[in-house]
Amino acid sequence: MDFNLTDEQQMLLESVDEFCERYFTEDVVKKMYEDHGMPQEIAEAYRDAGFGLMGIPEEYGGIPMDRVTIGLMIERLYQKSGCMHILYQNSLSMFDIMEFGTEAQKQEAMDHYMETGWPIASLSISEPGAGSDNRSMTTVAKKQADGTYKLSGQKTWVTMGEKLPYTIVVAKDEDPSHDNGNMSLWFVKMDTPGVSTAPLHKIGQQCIPFCEVYLDDVVLTEDQRMGEPGKGFMMLMKNFEVERSYIVAEQVGLAQAALEDAAKYANQRIAFGKPITRLQMIQELLADMEIKVQNTRNMLYKTLWMMDNDQPVQLESAMLKRYGCKACWEVADSALQIYAGLGYTTEVRVGRLWADMRGNMFGGGTHEVMAYIAGRQVAKKYAE
Amino acid sequence: MDFNLTDEQQMLLESVDEFCERYFTEDVVKKMYEDHGMPQEIAEAYRDAGFGLMGIPEEYGGIPMDRVTIGLMIERLYQKSGCMHILYQNSLSMFDIMEFGTEAQKQEAMDHYMETGWPIASLSISEPGAGSDNRSMTTVAKKQADGTYKLSGQKTWVTMGEKLPYTIVVAKDEDPSHDNGNMSLWFVKMDTPGVSTAPLHKIGQQCIPFCEVYLDDVVLTEDQRMGEPGKGFMMLMKNFEVERSYIVAEQVGLAQAALEDAAKYANQRIAFGKPITRLQMIQELLADMEIKVQNTRNMLYKTLWMMDNDQPVQLESAMLKRYGCKACWEVADSALQIYAGLGYTTEVRVGRLWADMRGNMFGGGTHEVMAYIAGRQVAKKYAE
Amino acid sequence: MDFNLTDEQQMLLESVDEFCERYFTEDVVKKMYEDHGMPQEIAEAYRDAGFGLMGIPEEYGGIPMDRVTIGLMIERLYQKSGCMHILYQNSLSMFDIMEFGTEAQKQEAMDHYMETGWPIASLSISEPGAGSDNRSMTTVAKKQADGTYKLSGQKTWVTMGEKLPYTIVVAKDEDPSHDNGNMSLWFVKMDTPGVSTAPLHKIGQQCIPFCEVYLDDVVLTEDQRMGEPGKGFMMLMKNFEVERSYIVAEQVGLAQAALEDAAKYANQRIAFGKPITRLQMIQELLADMEIKVQNTRNMLYKTLWMMDNDQPVQLESAMLKRYGCKACWEVADSALQIYAGLGYTTEVRVGRLWADMRGNMFGGGTHEVMAYIAGRQVAKKYAE
Amino acid sequence: MDFNLTDEQQMLLESVDEFCERYFTEDVVKKMYEDHGMPQEIAEAYRDAGFGLMGIPEEYGGIPMDRVTIGLMIERLYQKSGCMHILYQNSLSMFDIMEFGTEAQKQEAMDHYMETGWPIASLSISEPGAGSDNRSMTTVAKKQADGTYKLSGQKTWVTMGEKLPYTIVVAKDEDPSHDNGNMSLWFVKMDTPGVSTAPLHKIGQQCIPFCEVYLDDVVLTEDQRMGEPGKGFMMLMKNFEVERSYIVAEQVGLAQAALEDAAKYANQRIAFGKPITRLQMIQELLADMEIKVQNTRNMLYKTLWMMDNDQPVQLESAMLKRYGCKACWEVADSALQIYAGLGYTTEVRVGRLWADMRGNMFGGGTHEVMAYIAGRQVAKKYAE
Repeated sequence: MDFNLTDEQQMLLESVDEFCERYFTEDVVKKMYEDHGMPQEIAEAYRDAGFGLMGIPEEYGGIPMDRVTIGLMIERLYQKSGCMHILYQNSLSMFDIMEFGTEAQKQEAMDHYMETGWPIASLSISEPGAGSDNRSMTTVAKKQADGTYKLSGQKTWVTMGEKLPYTIVVAKDEDPSHDNGNMSLWFVKMDTPGVSTAPLHKIGQQCIPFCEVYLDDVVLTEDQRMGEPGKGFMMLMKNFEVERSYIVAEQVGLAQAALEDAAKYANQRIAFGKPITRLQMIQELLADMEIKVQNTRNMLYKTLWMMDNDQPVQLESAMLKRYGCKACWEVADSALQIYAGLGYTTEVRVGRLWADMRGNMFGGGTHEVMAYIAGRQVAKKYAE
Repeated sequence: MDFNLTDEQQMLLESVDEFCERYFTEDVVKKMYEDHGMPQEIAEAYRDAGFGLMGIPEEYGGIPMDRVTIGLMIERLYQKSGCMHILYQNSLSMFDIMEFGTEAQKQEAMDHYMETGWPIASLSISEPGAGSDNRSMTTVAKKQADGTYKLSGQKTWVTMGEKLPYTIVVAKDEDPSHDNGNMSLWFVKMDTPGVSTAPLHKIGQQCIPFCEVYLDDVVLTEDQRMGEPGKGFMMLMKNFEVERSYIVAEQVGLAQAALEDAAKYANQRIAFGKPITRLQMIQELLADMEIKVQNTRNMLYKTLWMMDNDQPVQLESAMLKRYGCKACWEVADSALQIYAGLGYTTEVRVGRLWADMRGNMFGGGTHEVMAYIAGRQVAKKYAE
Repeated sequence: MDFNLTDEQQMLLESVDEFCERYFTEDVVKKMYEDHGMPQEIAEAYRDAGFGLMGIPEEYGGIPMDRVTIGLMIERLYQKSGCMHILYQNSLSMFDIMEFGTEAQKQEAMDHYMETGWPIASLSISEPGAGSDNRSMTTVAKKQADGTYKLSGQKTWVTMGEKLPYTIVVAKDEDPSHDNGNMSLWFVKMDTPGVSTAPLHKIGQQCIPFCEVYLDDVVLTEDQRMGEPGKGFMMLMKNFEVERSYIVAEQVGLAQAALEDAAKYANQRIAFGKPITRLQMIQELLADMEIKVQNTRNMLYKTLWMMDNDQPVQLESAMLKRYGCKACWEVADSALQIYAGLGYTTEVRVGRLWADMRGNMFGGGTHEVMAYIAGRQVAKKYAE
Repeated sequence: MDFNLTDEQQMLLESVDEFCERYFTEDVVKKMYEDHGMPQEIAEAYRDAGFGLMGIPEEYGGIPMDRVTIGLMIERLYQKSGCMHILYQNSLSMFDIMEFGTEAQKQEAMDHYMETGWPIASLSISEPGAGSDNRSMTTVAKKQADGTYKLSGQKTWVTMGEKLPYTIVVAKDEDPSHDNGNMSLWFVKMDTPGVSTAPLHKIGQQCIPFCEVYLDDVVLTEDQRMGEPGKGFMMLMKNFEVERSYIVAEQVGLAQAALEDAAKYANQRIAFGKPITRLQMIQELLADMEIKVQNTRNMLYKTLWMMDNDQPVQLESAMLKRYGCKACWEVADSALQIYAGLGYTTEVRVGRLWADMRGNMFGGGTHEVMAYIAGRQVAKKYAE
């Protein structure tokens, strides 16, 4: 066993530190929460620094990278920026296109990214009536007599849906009924007739705009299909495992930020004549916060390393999402408790971290669905 | 033992229901969150219905009432309005004035309330450097040669401080040092020279404006003092016990609202072909939510009844605040989890309840301070 | 609302105190754990004091009593004896006979009790393959050509099965298949040919012997049937509600004993120059222990009162069993933690309480089944 | 990062598997619980296989080994033997002698071990009035006029104290007062006049005998001192870090055994017509059990690796003991819950694991003391 980082990983993390220090100043972050977005300048700098190209194949101008290193980068990025911005989710969208897209789609996506700093497409997966239970999806693409398809349905929880020029839609092939498990992915331009959106207002994650996407007899051609017909959801699902891990990388970075804030505050805050770090109840909170961060980080690295080594991680990624998203959010909750009244104001950042991080117990699969996936895998693992 | 409500209590609760149904429509509530306040119309209607007069002595126009009944009223008020507004806190302020004020102060307070529907004064207690550890307070009133006093210091967490014409300030007598435990209460007009404020922005409780109050050589006369000199904090502390109970009445009312929303949603939400109430993990959440609400309610009524019967409740009120504020907030957190993504939007009210209720784990004494108070009382109770 | 005990209840509790002080000396209790039983002398004294007759109809020599009072008595009995003995379970068996038995069975049961101090029969309900899922029971009674019945099957978890002269068996009528929901109760003499037993060794509850009961073509006559044919399980189930409540009365009494021991020990135990009750982590443990005991007690009295007032308690009794059995056991676990190493020895009684009380999270319905029952009831309660 | 085991580690684990399969048959284990010990045959085989020599310097006939590998061996040993025996604690005693002993003491210890398979000495550290608070120790060694020392005091929690020929005693130098922090280690023969013992009965860990050791004017000579005078406790404390880690290796091995038992049982147990692994509440339990085992294991390996790489682990070893001992015990508690009634009997091994593992939340430092140590270290780590 070896838990050391390589020199390259160390250097990468240092460059992430510099990037964050330069761009994510507290003023910029405050403005991001007011404007519900991220400055163009940051998107471009992130691309220019090469962070946004990590994990993309070399032939498209990307920087091939193992998942452990990408995870380390994401973790540090969120730790040091101290806010829940869009950057790692941008990568997820690019990864899906580079994995499932046609040659033309990939090329267009990369051109767009290099030009603008933004991914070309959002992901339209969830529906109001179909979350964990994806079979209940009713969005459907039906072939027309002229060889085109008509796409209809409603999607929700579409991150950046109103900002990006395309959206990747998963839709049932021909038949919206529950029994039909055949789904395809479609690369849909947002300005196509029949596509419209409505914003969704959240109680946290104010820098990450979401919307609903309405699809009303949107005409598609065969070349807009991504990947194999009928396998759309299977393809997405495979990527869920790595996406869940990266969500946790984000979450643990933010938890580390909350922990550091809280520990520093507790060192300075005087009550009853001494720093509150000398009170046992605060010591207990701090000990358990550090434990949760370390556990999550250990499990994260192990899971990413298993993926890098082609080991199955259906169980591990579900456990990681279940444990990590909650444990890290609890770290933010304890940080809030240590700050007490002050933490409940916008004077410090712990309150916004607390509200933002709670959302990661839904996105990418709920806490409960993770138990369901993991529990079945545990039963299988120990079956005689 | 008898757990029945009296007919009068039943009628009171029905009138609370009608009041809420009429005034706290979802449109009004949404606007309250945008405007950070409460319509004048509601303050007046609340006064006119007599709810705001409950617990105030008859000779001042009030309606004497036992604490159990006031608690029942508060609980129902928040359950049925489904939002964390200012109304019960208005009463706390009035109770303090009626208990500690001079005859003139009481009369002025009642006149103001009957005229405007609002209490006359906010409460300025906490300081940036003195929360649970009240001895660290540095606000001080020093007697001048001419018989007046000069008051200086900074107060924080002042609910409604910018809206009400007076504030009740607790300040050390003469000497701001840690050793000096003598404090007095002062009835200070907000437009006195030397008084200024700055708003505080919170991450929840948007209908309840808070501010900081700066006191800079504010001149006071002896007739502005409330109650016995040197006993100011002791007086406030005695009222903490009943105030903590009423906070829990608010909290359990809101938890009941969140529970009902979540249970109704779960009954309607279909996943895997059936309502999610038929999934064990949802059943478990619902069972534990109901348990927490019932436990809190049982402990609340018992504690209020003990106060009504002149039994000491130092232990009981601390346990109630510790258990109740957290358990009820966890009910909101579980409701959020049942709604999943939808709960994280402003389409439903569970998210705002979740954020608002978290604040009650600080206000009125933190979760940790309650353990400290209760733990010492338990040790004493069983000492041989 | 009124939380006072009546004078009669107060006097009853005092007589329970005297009874325990006299009979459950620490020497006697230690010997009970070695001998796996209870002295005959105690059974007789309990009967003579009238405790064992409470809740039995007057016409059979019993003392009619409301459930609140019986619950108070059981709670105090276990608090003051400080060990998990058989006494309240004796009553449950008697209650079932008095409710479902024929005139002859009731008379025989009462004669036996008055003569010996012990109930006449154990209860044979659970089977190795059928716990919560009672439909999977395979014990069956089949009518023979001569009008008699033949009973076959295997029962487990039979409390006192080897000590009492009869056992009440629930068996399917005619057909052991899963679909058949018709079951009857039978009053079976243990020395009937075909009845045999094997002891079960437990990891706790050493004073309460359990066994397995094997039924091998046991011949029964119609007059051995108890209650209406086909309704056997329904009848038992109705009694489950009150039985679950009395289990919790036992559990909360024992938790109170553990709490008192731990608090007294913590007051005396010196570490770092002061009693450990002055350490925040101990204060936190004590506060939460008292909270759990009070919550359980409040819910217990409310549920019993509802039963006494003919209100349905399907939800309440399931919540009570779920919350109370676990919360009270956690009190014992925290008591153990406060005693630390010493608690892990047989020098003090907290360790045996801890091991014994854990068993009440299975008996009378598991923690998980209670969530299932309560969760469905909550869903129904708030259905529109 | 690299999470692979080496080939040597793999082979070692296989030999541990074979060892356990051969010696720790269920019959042998049952007898160990009855006899409160371990067969001589196993002690010798363990020595002969070289497991007991791992970590002992080569010049004394030992097998030098990194801590990660020793940890892996211990974990697997307990997983596969499925019972809490004495073997790894034997090693701890040997490590202390090899680290602190004189040449003569070391040689005698090794000779004894090679001859008998048992360590030469027990450890006498805790006192009835001094656990976590070691300064309250009152055992003292006072120099006599003739150059000898007289040792007096009482020690408790002495593992194997009645079975082994020596005990290592930590005692204050000259002065038993609280202020005196100078302590030395002494190598005391149990048959010296003035040494006596009394057995302690525990509620678990029946294969690991404990006793109290009374020291009444025991005469010592200078050559019985181990290590530097006055530094005795400091020396022990340094070893606490690795000892705490090995306790967790034991605990996680046992938790893995409990998890496997429970998962297998749940796969076979049918309720409501299907294996209970298909019930969500069981899936949730299994998922969280696997998470706890994996978290503990990850943190264990990381901590041991840090020690092997000369990194400080004061924080890490305290977090590991706090999290790991409790989390793994909770795994046993959940396993018990999955088995329900059956788990509460001696028919299966989960109940004894549950009772045994609870003791590891005291031994080697309580759960609370670990929070105190870790909390202060976290505060320090993030201090600016």
